[in-house]
Amino acid sequence: MPLVVIGGVAAGLSAAARARRLDPRLEIVVLEQGPAVSYGACGLPYFVEGRVREPGDLVVHTPEYFRKERHIDVRTGARAAAISHPRREVTLEGGERVAYDKLVIATGARCDTAGIQGAGQPHVFTLHTLDDGVRLRAFLRERSPRRAVVVGGGYIGVEAADALRRNGLEVTLLERSAHLLLRADAAFTASVRRQLEKHGVEVRLDTSAGIVEAGSVDGVPCDMVVVAAGFRPNAELAAGAGIHLGRSGAIGTDDRMETNLRGVFAAGDCAEVNHLVSGRPAYIPLGTTANKCGRVAGANAAGGRERFAGIVGTSIVDIFGMAFASAGFSVEQARAEGFSPVAARIEALARPRYFQGTRTTVELVADRASRRVVGGSVIGEEGAAGRIGVIATALASRMRVDEFEQLDLPYSPPFAPVWDPLLVAAQQLLKDL
Amino acid sequence: MPLVVIGGVAAGLSAAARARRLDPRLEIVVLEQGPAVSYGACGLPYFVEGRVREPGDLVVHTPEYFRKERHIDVRTGARAAAISHPRREVTLEGGERVAYDKLVIATGARCDTAGIQGAGQPHVFTLHTLDDGVRLRAFLRERSPRRAVVVGGGYIGVEAADALRRNGLEVTLLERSAHLLLRADAAFTASVRRQLEKHGVEVRLDTSAGIVEAGSVDGVPCDMVVVAAGFRPNAELAAGAGIHLGRSGAIGTDDRMETNLRGVFAAGDCAEVNHLVSGRPAYIPLGTTANKCGRVAGANAAGGRERFAGIVGTSIVDIFGMAFASAGFSVEQARAEGFSPVAARIEALARPRYFQGTRTTVELVADRASRRVVGGSVIGEEGAAGRIGVIATALASRMRVDEFEQLDLPYSPPFAPVWDPLLVAAQQLLKDL
Repeated sequence: MPLVVIGGVAAGLSAAARARRLDPRLEIVVLEQGPAVSYGACGLPYFVEGRVREPGDLVVHTPEYFRKERHIDVRTGARAAAISHPRREVTLEGGERVAYDKLVIATGARCDTAGIQGAGQPHVFTLHTLDDGVRLRAFLRERSPRRAVVVGGGYIGVEAADALRRNGLEVTLLERSAHLLLRADAAFTASVRRQLEKHGVEVRLDTSAGIVEAGSVDGVPCDMVVVAAGFRPNAELAAGAGIHLGRSGAIGTDDRMETNLRGVFAAGDCAEVNHLVSGRPAYIPLGTTANKCGRVAGANAAGGRERFAGIVGTSIVDIFGMAFASAGFSVEQARAEGFSPVAARIEALARPRYFQGTRTTVELVADRASRRVVGGSVIGEEGAAGRIGVIATALASRMRVDEFEQLDLPYSPPFAPVWDPLLVAAQQLLKDL
Repeated sequence: MPLVVIGGVAAGLSAAARARRLDPRLEIVVLEQGPAVSYGACGLPYFVEGRVREPGDLVVHTPEYFRKERHIDVRTGARAAAISHPRREVTLEGGERVAYDKLVIATGARCDTAGIQGAGQPHVFTLHTLDDGVRLRAFLRERSPRRAVVVGGGYIGVEAADALRRNGLEVTLLERSAHLLLRADAAFTASVRRQLEKHGVEVRLDTSAGIVEAGSVDGVPCDMVVVAAGFRPNAELAAGAGIHLGRSGAIGTDDRMETNLRGVFAAGDCAEVNHLVSGRPAYIPLGTTANKCGRVAGANAAGGRERFAGIVGTSIVDIFGMAFASAGFSVEQARAEGFSPVAARIEALARPRYFQGTRTTVELVADRASRRVVGGSVIGEEGAAGRIGVIATALASRMRVDEFEQLDLPYSPPFAPVWDPLLVAAQQLLKDL
């Protein structure tokens, strides 16, 4: 009986490919409800913007590739309707039954537009699948809308606002919470907001979208709407099979990515993972995590014994040429997780003054009791990805600020100042610890 | 009696400034043999090139600034000739004696041209002090030399070759060893060499410079010579005072940067430091390390109790727009240090294909027994500084490849592919471990 994988994007195909590599003779079936597999969903905003020209540019491999080159039976348009673990079978929407020995659930997530009246209209879009992107791009080309409302100030919402603005639209962004980019951090949010507003995006925080009408959302005039809010794990199929969900509503797993049902694994946007800083399960759905967890799930489903240690919540977003990156917890988040956070936020040059370095903002958050770094953020036009990578690595190794302050970071005038902004932030933080 | 610091560049002034911060009333005297203090020596090649316009752009602070704003008595043109620790005094070249309570030795290093016949001629330059840079720049402007020989394929030599070539000169680089950029790594050296040659620099390895004549070096025709070889710690003053030197010939220190003489500290290019990967003293003179060690020496000299954990040997050099970065040990170096090295070298895109990412090369070296990462290198036009920073952080925390492979590195199409090249290298390495 085969290994069956439900879901053919990041986590699902990582699982299938890894299982194939470990066991060349295993029968592997991938069930994908949509028409396409193996695409880089994180590139969709750049396809909408136009920087990525063809939807095909986002597709890594076709179903044919997997069938022919990897001997993986990828079935598109195959929507799993139910799982019966006692019978070890998945029932498809059409009634067909697919037997499994091991099962990987990689059903992803969705934008839940249920709370928004009128979300079904043709000028309302989500940005989740390749089809969503194609449909939105066609609307831009054919209808030449002048005004857009984006609902949701997370990664996709902010990237969509950037993409639409660059296409010349007037854009209003509505975010239900007081924060942008999912980081409970007033200063970080203020910086994101400033950058959006500087480039002509109107930002309204603490604002839910209620009613979409033909020419407006809650009275804000617009010709089109992008809903990038209400992100929910597709966990119903799993729950229906008796699989335990975590507190977030996503599927709970152990460090082998196995659910409470033996031989049933879950990975990607439908599943929780361990957060290395808090030591507790977290739901932070991102493409990189989906790939890594999928790999581990696939390895274990193929008889391996691998574990996924966890994530630290690293993210980076480009907004009109400025990077906003964060990892671990903000002060507010750290406090909610039970730490006694102390933070330092500094502004410094990303490269020496005599090398025309631009300003970068670094915040480091530490726990007073353990002196461990528990979070940080980097904002700037250059070097932000590298610097958040350093913070992420320090978080993964539970580094104390004392060690962080002496990190042997690369120095040469074309790349960094002699005192890297990360070290300046750590020095500042040590004064308060 | 005052804290006396011998040397007024990176380590010396970091020590003085830190001591001042910890003790506002301490008397602090800095003795600098040259005419200038507090300059970014690492910027000299860019001043020679012309990208940095004025020598003043490299000066961070003037002696007046330190006197007025920090109440630090900085004396230029003050060359220490001897230290008598029993009498707690430094004798200057002119005979003047300066009493100390605590002493920080930050005498730096020099290019030892003694092995090269004819090195005293006016068309022969080193690139160590601000004066050296000014003299070399003036020679370029006034004499319009057409051909240069650079002796030494370390950081300064390679950067000087780049700078001179960009000024239109024909450049030949002579390196005594088989390696470039001080890394015993044939593949890395080959990449550096390829990049230099691609931009018209002739490279001769395994070639010592013997005799400089008016129009040639060992028969290689040239109008000017830059000697960037024979880097030696200025440790004679310390040795004369009974201070122990390490095996490298640089001053030995403990983790408080204290020498064998109580109350006498050493930091910067004249001193050894602990290498975090080998756990042994190493002599890797670099500006960042000088600043950090100076800070610790200054803190302890002012009565603090700080320690410097150590370095991991991180470096990065820009050669005609391509970054060559490394940290920790190459396979050859790791073997010499007693490890059983296993390495993986991969080439991958620094960003997604659909985002016009350029190729980057990553090598990771691990120890077979402990599975620890013990070194790595990154070569590429984008993202190399950030990626070597991640490797450096992993080295400092003694991370195993197993953890490294799951690092939660930042992902978003404008910055990195979903599988960062670092993770691809780690996956490859795990196959062989």
